[in-house]
Amino acid sequence: MSKYQDIRQSAYEANMELPKLGLVLFTFGNVSAADREQGVFAIKPSGVPYADLSPENMVIVDFDGNTVEGNMRPSSDTKTHAVLYKHWEKIGGIVHTHSTYATSWAQAQRDIPIYGTTHADHNTVDIPCAPPMSDEMIQGNYEYQTGFQIMDYLRDKGMSYEEVEMVLVGNHAPFTWGKTAAKAVYNSAVLEEVARMAFLTEQIRPDAPRLQDSLIKKHYERKHGPDSYYGQ
Amino acid sequence: MSKYQDIRQSAYEANMELPKLGLVLFTFGNVSAADREQGVFAIKPSGVPYADLSPENMVIVDFDGNTVEGNMRPSSDTKTHAVLYKHWEKIGGIVHTHSTYATSWAQAQRDIPIYGTTHADHNTVDIPCAPPMSDEMIQGNYEYQTGFQIMDYLRDKGMSYEEVEMVLVGNHAPFTWGKTAAKAVYNSAVLEEVARMAFLTEQIRPDAPRLQDSLIKKHYERKHGPDSYYGQ
Amino acid sequence: MSKYQDIRQSAYEANMELPKLGLVLFTFGNVSAADREQGVFAIKPSGVPYADLSPENMVIVDFDGNTVEGNMRPSSDTKTHAVLYKHWEKIGGIVHTHSTYATSWAQAQRDIPIYGTTHADHNTVDIPCAPPMSDEMIQGNYEYQTGFQIMDYLRDKGMSYEEVEMVLVGNHAPFTWGKTAAKAVYNSAVLEEVARMAFLTEQIRPDAPRLQDSLIKKHYERKHGPDSYYGQ
Amino acid sequence: MSKYQDIRQSAYEANMELPKLGLVLFTFGNVSAADREQGVFAIKPSGVPYADLSPENMVIVDFDGNTVEGNMRPSSDTKTHAVLYKHWEKIGGIVHTHSTYATSWAQAQRDIPIYGTTHADHNTVDIPCAPPMSDEMIQGNYEYQTGFQIMDYLRDKGMSYEEVEMVLVGNHAPFTWGKTAAKAVYNSAVLEEVARMAFLTEQIRPDAPRLQDSLIKKHYERKHGPDSYYGQ
Repeated sequence: MSKYQDIRQSAYEANMELPKLGLVLFTFGNVSAADREQGVFAIKPSGVPYADLSPENMVIVDFDGNTVEGNMRPSSDTKTHAVLYKHWEKIGGIVHTHSTYATSWAQAQRDIPIYGTTHADHNTVDIPCAPPMSDEMIQGNYEYQTGFQIMDYLRDKGMSYEEVEMVLVGNHAPFTWGKTAAKAVYNSAVLEEVARMAFLTEQIRPDAPRLQDSLIKKHYERKHGPDSYYGQ
Repeated sequence: MSKYQDIRQSAYEANMELPKLGLVLFTFGNVSAADREQGVFAIKPSGVPYADLSPENMVIVDFDGNTVEGNMRPSSDTKTHAVLYKHWEKIGGIVHTHSTYATSWAQAQRDIPIYGTTHADHNTVDIPCAPPMSDEMIQGNYEYQTGFQIMDYLRDKGMSYEEVEMVLVGNHAPFTWGKTAAKAVYNSAVLEEVARMAFLTEQIRPDAPRLQDSLIKKHYERKHGPDSYYGQ
Repeated sequence: MSKYQDIRQSAYEANMELPKLGLVLFTFGNVSAADREQGVFAIKPSGVPYADLSPENMVIVDFDGNTVEGNMRPSSDTKTHAVLYKHWEKIGGIVHTHSTYATSWAQAQRDIPIYGTTHADHNTVDIPCAPPMSDEMIQGNYEYQTGFQIMDYLRDKGMSYEEVEMVLVGNHAPFTWGKTAAKAVYNSAVLEEVARMAFLTEQIRPDAPRLQDSLIKKHYERKHGPDSYYGQ
Repeated sequence: MSKYQDIRQSAYEANMELPKLGLVLFTFGNVSAADREQGVFAIKPSGVPYADLSPENMVIVDFDGNTVEGNMRPSSDTKTHAVLYKHWEKIGGIVHTHSTYATSWAQAQRDIPIYGTTHADHNTVDIPCAPPMSDEMIQGNYEYQTGFQIMDYLRDKGMSYEEVEMVLVGNHAPFTWGKTAAKAVYNSAVLEEVARMAFLTEQIRPDAPRLQDSLIKKHYERKHGPDSYYGQ
């Protein structure tokens, strides 16, 4: 049995959640799960339909993007995952999808405004949309640079990756992360629903105001604060 | 067997309807069922996925919000339920969801206009959206105050909780109620569909007129009046 | 065995298609099937969930709206069905739903413009939306008058019920019909999809032009003309 | 066994994917699969529900549209398929649907702008919408002329059918193609999702900019270029 069996299993199960949650069409998404002690992560093989996935065909990759174990090519977004794992030492899972509503906000190159408590239960800020990458970054090591684009934008905005676990990449699509692959998948589903509600809110009322600060604080703290008690 | 077995069963069954009706993502909702004689209600435990619910893990709480029976923490919205049960003596069930369309109207802080008979079959008025709560209410006993915000707004509008069994809380999400938990769930599904149709109606015709009074009266009475005969 | 067994079976099967096609929430719809020789129709009982329907609990009603056989109350819309059967001698089935998109157009009180061949494959005209009924009609024999509202509007528009098998009633919802109950259900599903596409077309291009006459004629004739060959 | 068994099977399987992918209502779509050596294609029989399809009831037709084998009438769109196979020698499958979002763009008579990488992964250009056909073409051999309308428009735009495997026909609906019937079905599903996202993108930001050239090039090449490595 592989010494990476745990993350093979976690990555497999998390990938299988994506179609169940309606977050992917065909193979338009991928999840990885990291093993910090061994310095590697398991990720979906490239181009394989979800129905054909198994713990055994997950690919094991190190934090520089080199394949360590596995016969298949890892997801084409592997370098983005690797960069984020390397620099964000407390995350254990990453998800990339092209989910419909979140991707549409990314295409519109807009942060998703915080319009209600569904959003505030998970984030105290507008969900950041990193600008499209420069021509230079795109023509270079593209997927590698995508990771830096994400990290740089969060840093510029003064956001911590431990507090804000989701981002849109302008013109592209969302990435989410978390302490585990399962949590990162949860974040992808929350992001999609928040993106959908924000779209509808603006349709119903184009000048809808952002959420008041006290409510942002209250909802976030009841879920994430030292005295958290949220769960619904 | 618990002397609260009936409401454990009712609350369990009603909670299980929420995902079937597409009204919740993950654990974003909760249903309670009250036993008026014993002065308690059964409510969903906090943060437990719907697939893991059972009559046995419902939590029994009194109308002041104190847990009476059960090992798990009750839903984080329990105090809102308690306040409403305490003051509205004829209701037997309450539902809170973050259903997509109703929540988007709440985020837009707008009453849902009565545009057609689907709405009028259930309510003779625009579905009320209570304003976002004041900073003071939010920073205090938040969930408890949410109940008062709902009750105060209905009173200000001159609406009876026996006639209007649904409300939006501005920036937050919908609450519905009824004589039973099952009826409250029914109301949540109706509200979501009415919210969706009102959104579409305004997209198709931004100046769509409200329903004429005679039709409001007719549809409501054929379902709820002394000579009601509605059922479709 | 009932001498109305055939229409009991047809009405039952056609009613059961409504939830499968996503056209009803709870009991918000009903289908009837007529037996022209015996001068009666079978219709859904009022307020009974679809899961509890059977051929046996369909209610047999004559074309004046009197119950002929059955222990349950017929659908609250029975008189509308009866009036249409009485005056439109070639129809064998009627459907009433509150399907989301068609109902939203009815709430907007707009005819659905013919924007493409999906529409033209079934109708050569904009789908008519009868105006909301007068206060007098509503306060009188409402469901009975609904039938006349539909018939009068088609006559005013110079449309034949044999060619146009669907209508919206302003502020209310759609009715469809056909030679059989199954065809009427088919028409309800087509109407819902056409209504959805027309909504989207106007969102994508607010000044979208109606379909050119030659294309309307071609598509309709290849499906309905003397040399019809359509089927996809 | 038929000497066309392979394409019967391919066409059958590809047709069965359409309802699974949510691309058709009733029989509003059809797939064909070509055998280049024998100069024929297998196509869905006209008007047959998907549930009743089998490899055996696919109809075998030559590239002039003549039925070669089969007892049923081929799809009413058969001549369009025939013309495209005859002139585009490298395609092996064609799909026609009335999928909701793609058809709505066709009704709006607009090309679908390239707003993001989901689009760029499959096409480097806006998805072309051929103008509605002239009255003369419609009144003549309509389905045959539809094929020419598609080919002429691609030629006018300087697009190769080997690179752009999808088109909208104004006021009508989409056609897609590919080296196999399965690939053509894949393209139909991608087109529908891209059409949906483009609609949402414009709702979220009416002046959303088209994708920058470097990103179009990068995403397309990583999937289709000589050094392609895409798969997600």
